[in-house]
Amino acid sequence: MPDPAAPPGADHPDLAVITADLLARLRDQPIRVHAITNAAAQAFTANLLLAAGAIPSLTTAPEEVPFFTGRARALLVNLGTLDAERRAAIPWAIATARASGLPWLLDPVFVEASPPRLALAQLCLAGQPAVVRCNAPEFRALSDADPTPEALKRFAGAHGCVVALTGPVDHVTDGERFLSIENGHPLMTRVTAMGCAGTALIAALAGAEPDPFVAAASGLLAMGVAGEVAGEAAGGPGSFAPALLDALAGLSAETLTDRARPAWEPQP
Amino acid sequence: MPDPAAPPGADHPDLAVITADLLARLRDQPIRVHAITNAAAQAFTANLLLAAGAIPSLTTAPEEVPFFTGRARALLVNLGTLDAERRAAIPWAIATARASGLPWLLDPVFVEASPPRLALAQLCLAGQPAVVRCNAPEFRALSDADPTPEALKRFAGAHGCVVALTGPVDHVTDGERFLSIENGHPLMTRVTAMGCAGTALIAALAGAEPDPFVAAASGLLAMGVAGEVAGEAAGGPGSFAPALLDALAGLSAETLTDRARPAWEPQP
Amino acid sequence: MPDPAAPPGADHPDLAVITADLLARLRDQPIRVHAITNAAAQAFTANLLLAAGAIPSLTTAPEEVPFFTGRARALLVNLGTLDAERRAAIPWAIATARASGLPWLLDPVFVEASPPRLALAQLCLAGQPAVVRCNAPEFRALSDADPTPEALKRFAGAHGCVVALTGPVDHVTDGERFLSIENGHPLMTRVTAMGCAGTALIAALAGAEPDPFVAAASGLLAMGVAGEVAGEAAGGPGSFAPALLDALAGLSAETLTDRARPAWEPQP
Repeated sequence: MPDPAAPPGADHPDLAVITADLLARLRDQPIRVHAITNAAAQAFTANLLLAAGAIPSLTTAPEEVPFFTGRARALLVNLGTLDAERRAAIPWAIATARASGLPWLLDPVFVEASPPRLALAQLCLAGQPAVVRCNAPEFRALSDADPTPEALKRFAGAHGCVVALTGPVDHVTDGERFLSIENGHPLMTRVTAMGCAGTALIAALAGAEPDPFVAAASGLLAMGVAGEVAGEAAGGPGSFAPALLDALAGLSAETLTDRARPAWEPQP
Repeated sequence: MPDPAAPPGADHPDLAVITADLLARLRDQPIRVHAITNAAAQAFTANLLLAAGAIPSLTTAPEEVPFFTGRARALLVNLGTLDAERRAAIPWAIATARASGLPWLLDPVFVEASPPRLALAQLCLAGQPAVVRCNAPEFRALSDADPTPEALKRFAGAHGCVVALTGPVDHVTDGERFLSIENGHPLMTRVTAMGCAGTALIAALAGAEPDPFVAAASGLLAMGVAGEVAGEAAGGPGSFAPALLDALAGLSAETLTDRARPAWEPQP
Repeated sequence: MPDPAAPPGADHPDLAVITADLLARLRDQPIRVHAITNAAAQAFTANLLLAAGAIPSLTTAPEEVPFFTGRARALLVNLGTLDAERRAAIPWAIATARASGLPWLLDPVFVEASPPRLALAQLCLAGQPAVVRCNAPEFRALSDADPTPEALKRFAGAHGCVVALTGPVDHVTDGERFLSIENGHPLMTRVTAMGCAGTALIAALAGAEPDPFVAAASGLLAMGVAGEVAGEAAGGPGSFAPALLDALAGLSAETLTDRARPAWEPQP
């Protein structure tokens, strides 16, 4: 597998090319993703997965999540609107993913706001997610550290996962490789579930690509570039959301190559 | 009641005219529909019902569904995101519909994926839905048969219901009459809850029209034609969803007549 | 605080100016709003709050609502899709708001349809909401009276709250002051959760403005004017919803001043 974190000019395809290839794979052979996600994010997440060519299921019933997870290629666990049904379903979904060798992804929404949710997120982390996607306050709550490159790498190394930190600049690390992505648009913060749906896209890509670092970097790049395309077409946050789905569905290798702004860690 | 399954040229209004008339009736005297539907479909279903002129309610609490169903003119039971609340509410909603003589419709979402859900769907079928709307995998799970015209008719006859099978071509049968509809647009498969919301539209029409075969055929035609109009205006799956609501709200007799492509069963 | 219910020409800024100022305050220093709202309204409510510059949270779990409410500046309690989780969460959320001195707002959705919900709404009223936002059938159910100006004032006075009654013309009263607002667009009734999201906007404004009468009047005016701007741009109910979010996000003092149609109670 090419290393998208290697500096430009090295003898390997760059992240834009890798991402375009991965999106094409997803469109050619649809990937099922089971998403336990928060109530406000369910429809947008399903629509974003469908726009990218994946097939979502969203059930939260504990009796049913093993069946849905078992036939999916990846599992998303998002801790938003964590009701009794979701609390009971999440461990069975994770157990099914682990038993089936599926990648599963953790989105610890708002863990900084709720001590019981933070405790549950820590238990989820022990279930070895392939990717943890979070923002800075969520990372601080999970790790008791500021999201510096070193802290992100340490956390990824300690938990054996990829960390994808989103913000004005996104960062991805698996503890060794480290990549920053500067794509995106300010309107992405003005639409609910944008980050949650982005994690779902990473889940779909992780179902098609065995290296979760590549899946995470590609998913963040695709979202960032689709956000830029949509931001130029939109008249505000309302028209931005459908425009982003349109942009993601039509994202081409050319657009990705023209717009990608990955930034490599300075070499020592 | 005119028979929309009769071949063209017979002395009766065709399906496009029947559908236009039924949509006009719905706009003139709004019909309440109570919809127990999956979490990802709730908002889009409500918006599609409102776009067509109906009045949705969506409560899933077992204590409350008898009150909401009792003042509605039709009930939709969609088995997606089947949590404990919905499992407890569905039988009381169906019982209320039966006690009140209301038509109720079954949408057995993803029954092929989950054995407990399939078992529950079979119990629901015993409650005599007026219409079962499903896709091919769902029909196969429910009936243990491929969705041939004969199998669809047999299933409809055995359960005393109308079957509305959606796919690239839609089929409607009540066991005797059989009609296919070739309208629609590929983007309809790229938006979550499109089928679920279509079943809700059939429910609204079944509240205004005593023949559920006519309601089902009209609902599928209206969705298919609105999908075509929207597909020509949309830039992708994101802009397609609001465009379909706009198209449905403005659907005219002319557009229905110009675009309707019903196909009659070859006469023996 | 200027009195927006005073007649025009009095020596005070008018409602349009007050509203523009309040929206600017919200954009400058984002206000957290915790919203326990119905399932179909969650995403649109969150998106409307984000469009206005506020920060929504939507958790309904009883264990977590005290944490989320405690760090918010206002609480919205909407009684739609009132499942067991919401019924258990609402009293704890209200108790947290009262203990923290936060304003909380009640949206008694469809209380006219369900006796157990009406009983619960009456218990909520005893918890002294800052604002009750309802439509005419909901007001009739709550108060056993037609929504005349006198009945609205009496209800507001008896419960120590502001009543914001929405309909073709909106009315706001705190028992003494009374204001009517004639802005809005017919498509506002064709999109689900429009009223619910409007109450959430009032909640955000009540987090920034100590006089709940001013917050309610400003929120209704902002929604009505944004609805008019969106209605002129939209092709139907589908495109209207994103257009309203765009309009609200970009609402200027000029647009508010040009379009505001507040109507003062005839002076004795």
